Amino acid sequence: MEKKINLTMLTDFYELTMANGYFETGMADDIAFFDMFFRKVPDGGGYAIMAGVEQLMDYLKNLKFTDEDIDYLRSKQMFSEAFLQYLKNFKFECDVWAVPEGTPIFPHEPIVTVRGPVIQAQFIETMILLSINHQSLIATKANRIVRASKGRAVMEFGTRRAHGVDAAIYGARAAYIAGCAGTACAIADRDHGIKALGTMAHSWVQMYPDEYSAFKKYAQIYPDNCVLLVDTYNVLKSGVPAAIRAFKEMKPKSMGIRIDSGDVTKQKKKARAMLDAAGLEDCKIVVSNSLDEYIIRDVISEGACIDSFGVGERLITAKSEPVFGGVYKLVALEAGGQLIPKIKISENVEKITNPGFKHLYRLYDRETGKARGDVITLSDETIPEVDEYEIFDPNAVWKRTKIRNYFVRNLRVQLFDKGRCVYESPSIDEIRDYCREQIDTLWAETLRFENPQTYYVDLSRKLWNMKNELLSDYSGK
Amino acid sequence: MEKKINLTMLTDFYELTMANGYFETGMADDIAFFDMFFRKVPDGGGYAIMAGVEQLMDYLKNLKFTDEDIDYLRSKQMFSEAFLQYLKNFKFECDVWAVPEGTPIFPHEPIVTVRGPVIQAQFIETMILLSINHQSLIATKANRIVRASKGRAVMEFGTRRAHGVDAAIYGARAAYIAGCAGTACAIADRDHGIKALGTMAHSWVQMYPDEYSAFKKYAQIYPDNCVLLVDTYNVLKSGVPAAIRAFKEMKPKSMGIRIDSGDVTKQKKKARAMLDAAGLEDCKIVVSNSLDEYIIRDVISEGACIDSFGVGERLITAKSEPVFGGVYKLVALEAGGQLIPKIKISENVEKITNPGFKHLYRLYDRETGKARGDVITLSDETIPEVDEYEIFDPNAVWKRTKIRNYFVRNLRVQLFDKGRCVYESPSIDEIRDYCREQIDTLWAETLRFENPQTYYVDLSRKLWNMKNELLSDYSGK
Repeated sequence: MEKKINLTMLTDFYELTMANGYFETGMADDIAFFDMFFRKVPDGGGYAIMAGVEQLMDYLKNLKFTDEDIDYLRSKQMFSEAFLQYLKNFKFECDVWAVPEGTPIFPHEPIVTVRGPVIQAQFIETMILLSINHQSLIATKANRIVRASKGRAVMEFGTRRAHGVDAAIYGARAAYIAGCAGTACAIADRDHGIKALGTMAHSWVQMYPDEYSAFKKYAQIYPDNCVLLVDTYNVLKSGVPAAIRAFKEMKPKSMGIRIDSGDVTKQKKKARAMLDAAGLEDCKIVVSNSLDEYIIRDVISEGACIDSFGVGERLITAKSEPVFGGVYKLVALEAGGQLIPKIKISENVEKITNPGFKHLYRLYDRETGKARGDVITLSDETIPEVDEYEIFDPNAVWKRTKIRNYFVRNLRVQLFDKGRCVYESPSIDEIRDYCREQIDTLWAETLRFENPQTYYVDLSRKLWNMKNELLSDYSGK
Repeated sequence: MEKKINLTMLTDFYELTMANGYFETGMADDIAFFDMFFRKVPDGGGYAIMAGVEQLMDYLKNLKFTDEDIDYLRSKQMFSEAFLQYLKNFKFECDVWAVPEGTPIFPHEPIVTVRGPVIQAQFIETMILLSINHQSLIATKANRIVRASKGRAVMEFGTRRAHGVDAAIYGARAAYIAGCAGTACAIADRDHGIKALGTMAHSWVQMYPDEYSAFKKYAQIYPDNCVLLVDTYNVLKSGVPAAIRAFKEMKPKSMGIRIDSGDVTKQKKKARAMLDAAGLEDCKIVVSNSLDEYIIRDVISEGACIDSFGVGERLITAKSEPVFGGVYKLVALEAGGQLIPKIKISENVEKITNPGFKHLYRLYDRETGKARGDVITLSDETIPEVDEYEIFDPNAVWKRTKIRNYFVRNLRVQLFDKGRCVYESPSIDEIRDYCREQIDTLWAETLRFENPQTYYVDLSRKLWNMKNELLSDYSGK
């Protein structure tokens, strides 16, 4: 299937009705600020991993309404001709800032901020959310699985269970960023340089009269990477013995067996013993089938002799919690050179937004290199690297912490300057390395799978005051 | 973002290593049969809905290895030049049969069968599974949600939480097939004719000094479909009163309010009473936010006054169970004009495959039109429309049922004949109508959300005997 598709129209229809509305009421050029943020780390984890920025940039660089789009919109009989003409001449003019891919991110942080004509800044909501939500979801899940594997390689094997073509390709990308060693997906290798691997299915074994013949043929053709699937009939009674026989006769340079039932520890121990008894200590054991971070943690703690994991459906769909709930909210307007902060009220305190145009800073301990906390400030604030900086919990302001001997990093980069792309995405291997380094700056308590300690994400005093004034104003009404 | 991508290489890498292996060992032209089937309906439901066939056909029609693909494969230093030459000249030659989209399907049924040179029939495994697994998953979930809504319209609103671009577009397609009334995704409307709708986000309201001004402007621009989002600040205290005022002044032809917290029944009742008291009995109430079949069932049974539902993340990700576990297994070989059935053994009885080249029939009651059961037979069998046909449970052969006064339908169509496409996909509205009709042929016990009665999927006596012989042969070894 050859795909050629302009994705400009991959947008929620209400972006278009609102755009036409702003246009028709003379508000098209009003300058607005929007933040993307999320409220909850999936699976109750301590942090998420930012991903999807490169694909978002591709989308924004290529925004263009084709004649076909205009004709389609005209056919809806809802949009003015003047608005359709505006779309025909559409030129992206927004400023965009984002946290770089591979960075650990936390709830309520402005991970993307857009400033520009409201009609434009609003329009791009859908693809910002789609791109970042999807890849951050998979990166976050994959990183849990990679950490559970304690240094053993994790291969992403989920293509056949992904939610469509992009879920397979960009899921493989996100998984690699988060530490997977490679993928089964060939096109992700061809197009994104993510090493693809794979050896045989059960059908290969079934095509031959017996396992030994199937294995011997395979070893003959692929002596450099000979991983044999030993569970077509019976792992210990027929699969492993046939593999041992084929290995001994064919002497491949690199040997492995794959068992497609990853949760049976006893079986792996017996298989290991059989291989060792045959003098095949070098032969690796790869397991797959319905694995996730919990099963991997358990089989490792049970002492299963496993060298690497192939993880499929539970990674590529983030099965345990397949939604990354990023949202995109209006936070400020510009009028007469003044910034007017905007807040979204909710009876649910968690859903009240942080108003204003903001920065996001991370404070690291100079001695250990560990991240001490993040501070969200207004855009005219910086965090000085002084002797002592006090942060406080925005939901419990009496909880204060003094941070000393620290350095500060502005966590976000500018992607677009008045519509012009000013950021070059690092290579995928650079992103992957950076991700590993940044996760190393987190404390063990934050890395925990269950009930992690909440990482500090505080508001500057100035932002906190402004938010509270807006809330008081509102409740006074 | 303009996308142009040849998807031939969207395949698990092992399909390529096996293909090269078959080629190198002179087995490239051996004729093999593969079945796709699944083992379990997601969410414990009584049936799944077939979807994704049209996209699978697009893929198969356009299979072609480009020079770029060949160069990439050569760079892996694993494939012979003769094999690469074979790929360069690749011409799809398989026969493909499938259950048409929109059909209710059941575990263990051969929903896709491929016959062809093993190298080809194996290669297409990944995209067969990817296409059918994804769309069948979403269609199955969406249909549960549509049924829960008891005739009220369900709009698919999940684009921003979909797993990438295709998950958004083809998820909208699958949801529409399964009975959703439309989508929020504009591109799905433009390209697939799925009606897209959408009105405003909270940001529209925030852009104005107050809700009344925001609503009045909207009603002025969109008098034909004026749905106002009333929960930016406080639904009952400010949102609904402002909407009533705007409606009364502007008198739009079609009125509605949307409340983005779909689970609060009391609030809907009060909002309904306020609208009615204002003489706005025609004003519809639309709700959204984290809905699924269970919440919809509950709010309806609580008497919430809701006219339609917008369902997002829990539909587009099939959140409660985001994996459709279709697999693709070798079931037969052809040698010297003879069919040699193949079986995949497993200690887990559920995982033992049905061998042979097979047909799938559905028996319907002539009087009620209801489906009585399905029968899987060998390919040389038909099911006669006689006085009485006895079916039996393959896992409990003493359980027999006599079916009388029935008619029989061969459930599958041929998509490809020696590589040539011989099937034209119906229009999406035809598929949607057919889906509704076919679901009407199921009994209420099968439609139940929890603990549905298991629908009969039986094997013909001949197939059952053959399977048992193969199992005996194996255990005798």
